[in-house]
Amino acid sequence: MTATDGAEVRPSITTGPITGSRKVHHVTGSGLRVPARRIDLSNGEHFDVYDTSGPYTDPNATIDVHSGLTPIREPWLADRKHDTQLGWAKAGVVTREMEFVAARERVDPEFVRSEVALGRAVIPANRAHPETEPMIIGKNFLVKVNANMGNSAVWSSVEEEVDKMVWATRWGADTIMDLSTGRRIHETREWLLRNSPVPVGTVPIYQALEKVGGDPARLSWEVYRDTVIEQCEQGVDYMTVHAGVLLRYVPLTARRVTGIVSRGGSIMAAWCLAHHTESFLYTHFEELCEILRSYDVTFSLGDGLRPGSIADANDRAQFAELETLGELTHLARQHDVQVMVEGPGHVPMHKIKENVELEERLCGEAPFYTLGPLATDIAPAYDHITSAIGAAQIGWYGTAMLCYVTPKEHLGLPDRDDVKTGVITYKIAAHAADLAKGHPYAQEWDDALSTARFEFRWHDQFALSLDPDTARAFHDETLPAEAAKTAHFCSMCGPKFCSMRITQDVRAYAEEHGLTSMTAIEEGMREKSREFTERGGQVYLPVVE
Amino acid sequence: MTATDGAEVRPSITTGPITGSRKVHHVTGSGLRVPARRIDLSNGEHFDVYDTSGPYTDPNATIDVHSGLTPIREPWLADRKHDTQLGWAKAGVVTREMEFVAARERVDPEFVRSEVALGRAVIPANRAHPETEPMIIGKNFLVKVNANMGNSAVWSSVEEEVDKMVWATRWGADTIMDLSTGRRIHETREWLLRNSPVPVGTVPIYQALEKVGGDPARLSWEVYRDTVIEQCEQGVDYMTVHAGVLLRYVPLTARRVTGIVSRGGSIMAAWCLAHHTESFLYTHFEELCEILRSYDVTFSLGDGLRPGSIADANDRAQFAELETLGELTHLARQHDVQVMVEGPGHVPMHKIKENVELEERLCGEAPFYTLGPLATDIAPAYDHITSAIGAAQIGWYGTAMLCYVTPKEHLGLPDRDDVKTGVITYKIAAHAADLAKGHPYAQEWDDALSTARFEFRWHDQFALSLDPDTARAFHDETLPAEAAKTAHFCSMCGPKFCSMRITQDVRAYAEEHGLTSMTAIEEGMREKSREFTERGGQVYLPVVE
Repeated sequence: MTATDGAEVRPSITTGPITGSRKVHHVTGSGLRVPARRIDLSNGEHFDVYDTSGPYTDPNATIDVHSGLTPIREPWLADRKHDTQLGWAKAGVVTREMEFVAARERVDPEFVRSEVALGRAVIPANRAHPETEPMIIGKNFLVKVNANMGNSAVWSSVEEEVDKMVWATRWGADTIMDLSTGRRIHETREWLLRNSPVPVGTVPIYQALEKVGGDPARLSWEVYRDTVIEQCEQGVDYMTVHAGVLLRYVPLTARRVTGIVSRGGSIMAAWCLAHHTESFLYTHFEELCEILRSYDVTFSLGDGLRPGSIADANDRAQFAELETLGELTHLARQHDVQVMVEGPGHVPMHKIKENVELEERLCGEAPFYTLGPLATDIAPAYDHITSAIGAAQIGWYGTAMLCYVTPKEHLGLPDRDDVKTGVITYKIAAHAADLAKGHPYAQEWDDALSTARFEFRWHDQFALSLDPDTARAFHDETLPAEAAKTAHFCSMCGPKFCSMRITQDVRAYAEEHGLTSMTAIEEGMREKSREFTERGGQVYLPVVE
Repeated sequence: MTATDGAEVRPSITTGPITGSRKVHHVTGSGLRVPARRIDLSNGEHFDVYDTSGPYTDPNATIDVHSGLTPIREPWLADRKHDTQLGWAKAGVVTREMEFVAARERVDPEFVRSEVALGRAVIPANRAHPETEPMIIGKNFLVKVNANMGNSAVWSSVEEEVDKMVWATRWGADTIMDLSTGRRIHETREWLLRNSPVPVGTVPIYQALEKVGGDPARLSWEVYRDTVIEQCEQGVDYMTVHAGVLLRYVPLTARRVTGIVSRGGSIMAAWCLAHHTESFLYTHFEELCEILRSYDVTFSLGDGLRPGSIADANDRAQFAELETLGELTHLARQHDVQVMVEGPGHVPMHKIKENVELEERLCGEAPFYTLGPLATDIAPAYDHITSAIGAAQIGWYGTAMLCYVTPKEHLGLPDRDDVKTGVITYKIAAHAADLAKGHPYAQEWDDALSTARFEFRWHDQFALSLDPDTARAFHDETLPAEAAKTAHFCSMCGPKFCSMRITQDVRAYAEEHGLTSMTAIEEGMREKSREFTERGGQVYLPVVE
């Protein structure tokens, strides 16, 4: 395989298991092999976690980026007539994809079907992307994370983007978006699609704009439509469409601090103004539905007027567009096309909840997919953090997928390290949201890690971390010796001051002195507590040996 | 000045202004010089921000760590009889310290006095620490950040701690805590106090334990009291006292996933169990009040039973102790001693608010001072982020000061880079909270940066960042040329796709075509919008030139 300019493309990617874990497969009733990442613990137990990394972490898999991943969904597709997941769900049919995601999420397949039928969840899985391991996006499932890839006019290559895609899914990206805007757009996307184990999203207007030499005024429905078909054919699983940027909304952005910050939004605004005509994405929306339906491509209705600063959050422009996105959501569903809705952006904490409530009401609970939001503007170089603060909250309130933000946001293009930092940061936000939503399995992971920590099982603590390598490296920096990995203390307090060690001593002491039943002590203590309060706080409690 | 072991101590510290800004002083009515950091912008404007860095960022100041900082408060203290800030506030007196913090916070000095009188805010300023620039901690002021320092039994030196202290205040630490537990505790503290421009907190039980050879059972009120007096004499501004760890609460921790994780809490629990006696911190609390009162040292009532894992959040042990802290808060206030109350720890998002509400109710709105909380346990090496998620929220709900967490939390001791990362991360959380609370000046900063961003004033954007050096370095990585610092696009989209540039083109276009009054367009558009909806979405809006 060579690049369009004749140069050979040689992506170098990371394979092999994540430290301290290994690939396992759970087999479903009808024989589907559903991947999980198993962490074997030193106490003989194990802990399985959701696995987005595809065959790359499986030492038994043969990886050849030139031929691409095995198209695991091909036999499923051959077995049935064409329809969308939404179409099947409405018809009461549980597809293989639904069965697969049910096993990944540890829920009943019928529950998956009913959430998809309601439009409250989507399974982005283009028929032309059979390599993908199906996953689901919806508020009643685990919160998902998207990682953006893509070269630009000024930087990066096909090789780097493939490497970053494998790297992002290794650390937990549930979907990736190819936002390429430079040369080789088609080629980059082909490489990503054939090698991606997760759904791939795009913003077709970027490629359409390249086709007309970068002048928004020269865009047309025909150029756009042909670009969408090209991308559907290649296997793109979901597409961002900024069909809510209406001509009449553009002036609402005039007095904003940061105007229109969405690329797609600004392109469409420029087109609308130049032609004094309503957006062709809006006027041709039903034709677009029919195209997406025939491949089962999911809409990601883009928020072209999202706020680009704290000052512009929740303003009229943003919410006017959201209303239109609601209208389009219902239209797409009538065509049996799956829909997600994109959200902000930059929002201070006290204005986050309103975004979710409004989206759910206007868009019939279509999965909300937000970028952050950043909770403040004052920390470029740390926007993975400013946005994780907002992302965790908006996830808790019901957002189904969080688009990551890397440390380079607003400043440059993310490299490999930034991609990892962005993904891990967003796995934190997503998991914090799962915990706060009371997801039945979320807390098990925290408990497993905290128990390992309390029992000084250092290797288990590392293996249970989102990033075992960095956790271990940080421990090594202060206490590099292997002995320290079994030590009953750590570098923060040293042996004498270790609070957890003292707690264990306290427990041992209690047991030694026959105070084995903590319930008994507790009962006694409660009695004594009353006496104590009555006697004015000067009591020596008679807990004798 | 030499170390106790005879070796010469040579701290090397960072001085000079932060990139893109310079020290200025605002002079108050009675002539106090209140520092601020002025960011001069390329459009001729300037933006002043709160400055914690002390004389170290002032090129006109002479810095000699061997003689310490100028004791600026000495003349103020000489002018008045001894009392605490709380005592003066109750008596209706506005002290110099109150006047100073009022200027820093841009509020009326009388408001400061009344908040202190109510106990809703504290000004930690030991008479024996005249070098400190007064600051205030309370929910109606800017949210503050504390950075922990301190060597331990296994690592770090006096030099490093002094360097880290200057470094932490440079990036915005409002107070520091010296948590040293190894050798040279007294000496390290002396160096920190004489050179710290911010209040210094300690946990006296750590030094007391060193004095009895590390065996909690050998602790006594007398050893503890003498340690407290020693530290008061040196100038410690606030002290963590775990007086709420009562004997009867210890069994409540028995079935926890992570037991007692506070060092002070576990030491006191061990003492109580070993002696079958109520905590001497509790039984001697009023004597302690009288000691702290005579120096105006502020209590930081420690949460020795704080949760150390998501599983243990908001449990009976934690809230039982909080009730006792409430009782002690009221007792201390009767003695005119200022009080803050410490909080967790590890708390999932949906359980955070309850912590603030309970603290405010039980402790009469005494300033709440929390460690994080971490919103999940599964990301060691990223706990600055897991905890910033919780910290931003708890700050929004009313927490007055946030104790930072560094990437090394749970794994090792923070180095200089970790300290900076921790401080910047917590400045983000604190500022996000200020924004969400609607602090009148908080959004000005975001607006200044976002306006610079929108106008492609790159140097201004860097200078207005919490970390200008890193922001600029990240920009340089993709577009290193100086020309790129004035370019009307950035590396993410390149020149053709820049959304903000397109927005500006849109505005220019509108102006060119006589659409100068955006209000006029908006009015017209609103009319057209109604027509549009009525006609079913197929309208070409007649916005003609």
